[in-house]
Amino acid sequence: MRAALELFSEKGFHGTGVAEIGDRADVQRGALYYHIGSKEELLWQILGDYTRLMLAEAEQIAGGSDYPVTKLRKLIHSHVRLIIENRAAVAIQLRDGAALSGERAGELQQLRDRIQALWQQVIDAGKSSGVLRTGDHVVTNSVLGMLNSVTFWYRADGRHTPDEIADILCTTVLDGLIQPRKSTKG
Amino acid sequence: MRAALELFSEKGFHGTGVAEIGDRADVQRGALYYHIGSKEELLWQILGDYTRLMLAEAEQIAGGSDYPVTKLRKLIHSHVRLIIENRAAVAIQLRDGAALSGERAGELQQLRDRIQALWQQVIDAGKSSGVLRTGDHVVTNSVLGMLNSVTFWYRADGRHTPDEIADILCTTVLDGLIQPRKSTKG
Repeated sequence: MRAALELFSEKGFHGTGVAEIGDRADVQRGALYYHIGSKEELLWQILGDYTRLMLAEAEQIAGGSDYPVTKLRKLIHSHVRLIIENRAAVAIQLRDGAALSGERAGELQQLRDRIQALWQQVIDAGKSSGVLRTGDHVVTNSVLGMLNSVTFWYRADGRHTPDEIADILCTTVLDGLIQPRKSTKG
Repeated sequence: MRAALELFSEKGFHGTGVAEIGDRADVQRGALYYHIGSKEELLWQILGDYTRLMLAEAEQIAGGSDYPVTKLRKLIHSHVRLIIENRAAVAIQLRDGAALSGERAGELQQLRDRIQALWQQVIDAGKSSGVLRTGDHVVTNSVLGMLNSVTFWYRADGRHTPDEIADILCTTVLDGLIQPRKSTKG
């Protein structure tokens, strides 16, 4: 799986051959299909694994007893951390997720839909309680898109830790970029 | 170019053959390389074209005389509109942009860097004038990532027009999701 992750990252799913994966993982040609199965099976394992991690954390946060805004902060922190930890797999998802087909594609889509539904549930609760100004799906889609895109620009040697990045994004999304005016009118 | 755009969208850059592009565009085999050149040349044209459009609009907005927040709103509207109009090309960029090499890769990266620098310049101006709370690059990267990700979920038959989507994203990023408290304390 590590060999497949590396090769899919470097050359894309379609540009990688099963034999190459075997070579990199030091699997004998004869035992290749016994150990590796299909390329698509490896893709499914790589994408399914981190998506299930995200879902498990989102379920725990959304199912907890915090207020919606606190849940949203925790969801953002969890998502940013997992995106960064699994950024090679996320980049493969963004580039070659469409290469999964049939049952596996459906199963991955279901996991992703369940994560999105948990975010939507928290955002809807914030809207209902009057603390968030909108529960529009555009916001849910875009915030998740923003967090997933961290994978494109994050550098391990960059200025911020994953937690600092998550803090900046929490403030941006929840409080907005515009500096609140200092109350001078009493 | 339209044939290449369609095929790269459907099958990815690496999954598309030059002969297929010729077939779809009804170009005779013998004239293929005369009309089409290389697959990479087509990719460069597709990605360069929309990126130059984005750069031209960003230059006009950033170079104008509006206040920084107004410029930021205009940048968001322009970017969302161009992302949606060119969503097939943007999806190809996100998936197969890395397939460009050498001079073309450098030239595209330069165009993208110039766009990002214009956004950063507007955000820095907002920070300097005290109206924005931060000019951190994390924000610039993330807002652009958020807008680019519109291509993943936008549907032409969805509930919102591109302009409405841009409005929702302006409010989210500039004012934040948290509803301002109604001043009851005077």
